[in-house]
Amino acid sequence: MNPEHPCTAAEGHLKLRRLGIDTHQELVVYMRADCAVCRSEGFTAQSRVQIAAGGRTVLATLNVVHGDWLSHGDAGLSESAWRLLGAQEGQHASFSHPRPVDSLSAVRGKVFGHALSDESMTEIVRDIVAGRYADVDLAAFITACADDHLSSAETISLTRAMVAVGRRLSWPRTLVVDKHCVGGLPGNRTTPVVVAIAAANGLCMPKTSSRAITSPAGTADAMETLAPVDLSLEQMRAVVEKEGGCIVWGGSVDLSPADEILIRVERALDIDSEGQLVASVLSKKVAAGSTHVVLDIPVGPTAKVRSEQAAAKLTALFQEVARATGLAVRAELTDGTQPVGRGIGPALEARDVLAVLRQEANAPKDLRDRSLRLAGAVLEIAAVSRDGEGLAAATRTLESGEAWRKFAAICQAQGGMREPALAPHRQPLIARRKGLLSAADNRRLARIAKLAGAPRAPSAGVQLHVRVGDTVDIGQPLLTVHAESTGELAYAMDYVGRNNVFTIVEERV
Amino acid sequence: MNPEHPCTAAEGHLKLRRLGIDTHQELVVYMRADCAVCRSEGFTAQSRVQIAAGGRTVLATLNVVHGDWLSHGDAGLSESAWRLLGAQEGQHASFSHPRPVDSLSAVRGKVFGHALSDESMTEIVRDIVAGRYADVDLAAFITACADDHLSSAETISLTRAMVAVGRRLSWPRTLVVDKHCVGGLPGNRTTPVVVAIAAANGLCMPKTSSRAITSPAGTADAMETLAPVDLSLEQMRAVVEKEGGCIVWGGSVDLSPADEILIRVERALDIDSEGQLVASVLSKKVAAGSTHVVLDIPVGPTAKVRSEQAAAKLTALFQEVARATGLAVRAELTDGTQPVGRGIGPALEARDVLAVLRQEANAPKDLRDRSLRLAGAVLEIAAVSRDGEGLAAATRTLESGEAWRKFAAICQAQGGMREPALAPHRQPLIARRKGLLSAADNRRLARIAKLAGAPRAPSAGVQLHVRVGDTVDIGQPLLTVHAESTGELAYAMDYVGRNNVFTIVEERV
Repeated sequence: MNPEHPCTAAEGHLKLRRLGIDTHQELVVYMRADCAVCRSEGFTAQSRVQIAAGGRTVLATLNVVHGDWLSHGDAGLSESAWRLLGAQEGQHASFSHPRPVDSLSAVRGKVFGHALSDESMTEIVRDIVAGRYADVDLAAFITACADDHLSSAETISLTRAMVAVGRRLSWPRTLVVDKHCVGGLPGNRTTPVVVAIAAANGLCMPKTSSRAITSPAGTADAMETLAPVDLSLEQMRAVVEKEGGCIVWGGSVDLSPADEILIRVERALDIDSEGQLVASVLSKKVAAGSTHVVLDIPVGPTAKVRSEQAAAKLTALFQEVARATGLAVRAELTDGTQPVGRGIGPALEARDVLAVLRQEANAPKDLRDRSLRLAGAVLEIAAVSRDGEGLAAATRTLESGEAWRKFAAICQAQGGMREPALAPHRQPLIARRKGLLSAADNRRLARIAKLAGAPRAPSAGVQLHVRVGDTVDIGQPLLTVHAESTGELAYAMDYVGRNNVFTIVEERV
Repeated sequence: MNPEHPCTAAEGHLKLRRLGIDTHQELVVYMRADCAVCRSEGFTAQSRVQIAAGGRTVLATLNVVHGDWLSHGDAGLSESAWRLLGAQEGQHASFSHPRPVDSLSAVRGKVFGHALSDESMTEIVRDIVAGRYADVDLAAFITACADDHLSSAETISLTRAMVAVGRRLSWPRTLVVDKHCVGGLPGNRTTPVVVAIAAANGLCMPKTSSRAITSPAGTADAMETLAPVDLSLEQMRAVVEKEGGCIVWGGSVDLSPADEILIRVERALDIDSEGQLVASVLSKKVAAGSTHVVLDIPVGPTAKVRSEQAAAKLTALFQEVARATGLAVRAELTDGTQPVGRGIGPALEARDVLAVLRQEANAPKDLRDRSLRLAGAVLEIAAVSRDGEGLAAATRTLESGEAWRKFAAICQAQGGMREPALAPHRQPLIARRKGLLSAADNRRLARIAKLAGAPRAPSAGVQLHVRVGDTVDIGQPLLTVHAESTGELAYAMDYVGRNNVFTIVEERV
C-alpha cells in the first residue's frame, strides 16, 4: 500500500447529481443507505466524507437517504458542495475517509486555554477556507475566541492568516484611505458620505464594506439599495480609477474569504469577539491595500462598545494589530447612546444618506454631523487638511454640492444609481403615555428591524419618529415598522408589543 | 391580535412528506424556494422554522429545494424531525417564525464570562431536549462550558436540570449501588464483572451505561455484543427484580435525554468538559435511583485524567455535586498508564470480559484485578463487607463461579446471551526493532480503533499482543487491527504506519 495514498484501495466511485438543495454554506452529500461506498467505507449519517472529482476535493457532511428518489450508483450534492467542487451532472467522483483535520487539535487546545501559535492560526484559516470545518467546528472556534479570549499576538496571527488566504489589492496610489465603524449602532451609515467627500478631495478611497453580521444592515446592504455593490475586482478597479472611490461589497472581490465563512456562523450564534472583530476589520483593510484608516467607535450603554474603558481597550488592540500589519489607524470615539438618523434597515438607512448628500431640509442632523467629523478625520490622516481643519474642509465639500455630485458619479460608475424601495407593509407604534423620551434601546430596535426582515428584505426595518430628549404626547407615532411580508410584520409587531423600546418619564414642571 | 398566539396570522400550511433523509439528530425541513410559506414568511436557507402538526411543535433548520422533486404544497422532513413531530404522511402542518430561544442569551452570557444561574441552566436544558437548539448552538454551549469553565454551583444546576427533563426511577430497595468509570482508558470494561459480583451478593445494581463519547467503545457498546441492551424501563425493571442487576443502555430508558443530545455534538467536536462530565455521570445516577456510587478514575499521562492533582480536583467536584444531589460517592484512583485487557472495541472488549468471568487461563489479569478491586469497593460502600474486606469477598464470588452464573442469568433476562462476533478483516502491526516496550499511547490506540470503525462497527478495533514492560523481538506482532470493511482497515493501517503507538527502547544488559 502506498503510504502517500492510503485511501486509494478503499475509494468508491459514484456519479454526482445536483439535487438543488440549498444548505447555505454547509457542504452536504446525500448517499443511499444501501450504496456500496457507504457499506465498504462504513459511512453513516453525519460522517465526514472526502469527495474528489476533476482534480478537486471537498469535505462534506453525509446525509443518508432511505428510499428510491436517489438512484443506485448516484450521490447527490448540496448547492454549496456542487459549487465548491465545480461538479458536472453525472461526473464520476471518488469518496473516501478524510484525513483528520489536524488544525482542529489546535482549536481544541484553545478551548482548553492554550494559546494559538502563528502556524496553528494559519492552518486553521486555511482549512476553514478549504471547507474542511463542519459548522459545529466553526461554532467551537468562534466560541473559543469570543469575548477577549484572543491575545493581541493571536489577533495579529489571525489577521495575517486571513489576509494570506484571500486576494490582496494594490493601487497606483501610495496613499489609500479607508474608514470603518465597529458597529453596534443602528443606522450609523456614514460611509457613503465620507467616501464622497474624500474622493471629491482627490483621495483614493476604494471602500469595501461588509454585509450585516448581527445588525439589521451593513453598509453593503444599504448601499445595494442605491447601486450595485457586488462588483468584480476589475469592475471595482475601473470605478476607483475613474472616480477615486467606490463602495462595494468586500465578499464579492474575495478579499477575506475566511471572514465571510466565520461571519455566517457568528450571525447564527449572535456572538462577536474582540479579536475576531479586529482581525475581520484590519485583514480587509490590509487586503484592500489601504494605508490610512479612520475607525468610528460608537460608545454607549446599548452599543457594541459599552464604556470608555472598553473603547480604550479595543482601540489599543486595533493600534497594536495595525502597527504589526503596517497600517496607520486613527480611532474616533463617537456617541453611541441612540441610533443615528431615522431609518434602521438597508433602504431606510439609504434614504437618510441621500437626504444628507442632497442637503435636504429634513436630513438627519446627527448623521450629517458624524459623517462630516469622520470625513474630516480622513482628510487629516491623509494630510489633505492640517490637524484641526478637516471638519471645515469636509463641510465645504458637502455644502458646495461636490460631495453629492461625486456620490452620484460613483453610483453611476458602479452600474447605475437607483432609488431605495418603500416596503409594502407598515405599522406604527403609538405612544400610550406622555412625557420625556429619556432613553432608546438600540439592541431592541435592531431586533425589531431584523424580525421585520432586515437585512435580507432590503426595504424592511424601523423608521424612528422621535429622538432621545423629545417630549411625546399620547397617540403620537414613535416608530413605524416596515416589512415586505405580513408574517414578518406581525412577528416584529408582536415583539414591539412585548418589549419596551423607549423609556418615557413624566415631565416635572 | 392575540399576544399569546402572535404568529397565527402569519402561519402557512403545507402537507408533510417523509423524505427518508437521515441527518442524525439535527432537525431539517425541506421547502421549495417558490413555496408560498417561504415567500410570505421570508424564510431562506438555514432559517429556523417552527413546525406545528397534531398538537406538537418542533424547531427545524430550513434547506431550500430548487427543482421539482418536491411538489408544490409539500414540505419534506428529515427522519429526525419526522420522528420528533410524530408526523403522518400528507398531514397538514403550519409553519411560522419561532420565538427567539431566550435561553440562548444565557449561553451567550456564559461565552462572555457570566455565570449561568439555576434558572438559566434549567431553561437551557429544557430547550435542548425540546430540539430548540441548532447544532451550532449546542457546539457553542459545549465549548463555553469546556475544560473547567463550569463552577461547582453551575455543575450542580446542570446536574439537576438534566435529571429534571428525564425520567427518574425508583426501586423497591432503599440501597441501590452503581459504579462508573470516567473513561479515557481503552478496554477498561469492568462493569459487567462488578454488576455480576454485586448482584450475586444480593445487592441491587440496576446499571445504565452510556455508549462511547470520544472513545472506541462504551460499556453499552461492548455489552450489546453479549446481550440486548436497549431495554424499555419495564423490561429493565423486570430484569433487576429477577436478578438484582442489569447492564443496559441509559439512552433507551430516557434517563437523561439531554445527555444523549450533548454527547453527539461533544463526539463530533471531540471536546469533553469537567463540569459536563460530572453532570452527565451524576445526573444519570440520580435519575437511575442510585444511592451509593463507586467511581473509577484512571490516572495516567495519556488517560483522560492526566495527574493525581487533576484527579483530586475532579474527585472534589464529584463529591460536592454528589452531596448536593443526595448521593454517596467513593472515588477509586486507578492505574491509567496503559489500556486494560487486550481488546479495544466493543466485541474485543466483551471477549476479555467473558474470559475473566469464565476464569479462563488466558483471562487478562489487569482487567480481573481492577474488576475485583471495584467490586470490593461496591461491597464496602454498601456495607455488605466491612472496610478492607471487600476485595476478598469479591474474589470469592468470582472464583466460586457465582459471578459467571449471575452474569449469564442477567444476559438471559435481558433477552438472551450471544457470543461476540469476530471481524472479517484483520491486519497485524509487526515489530521492526527489538527491545523493551516502555510505553503505549492510549490516545493513538483509541484513534486506531475508531478509524477501524469502532464503536459503530461492533467487531472492529485493536487486539493488543504486548504490554508495557514486555520485551519484544523483530517480526513479533504487536497488535492486530480488526475491521468490518476493507476501507476502514486500510485507513486505520495508514494511521498505524504514520504514528508511533509504542515506545521500544534498547535493552541494556
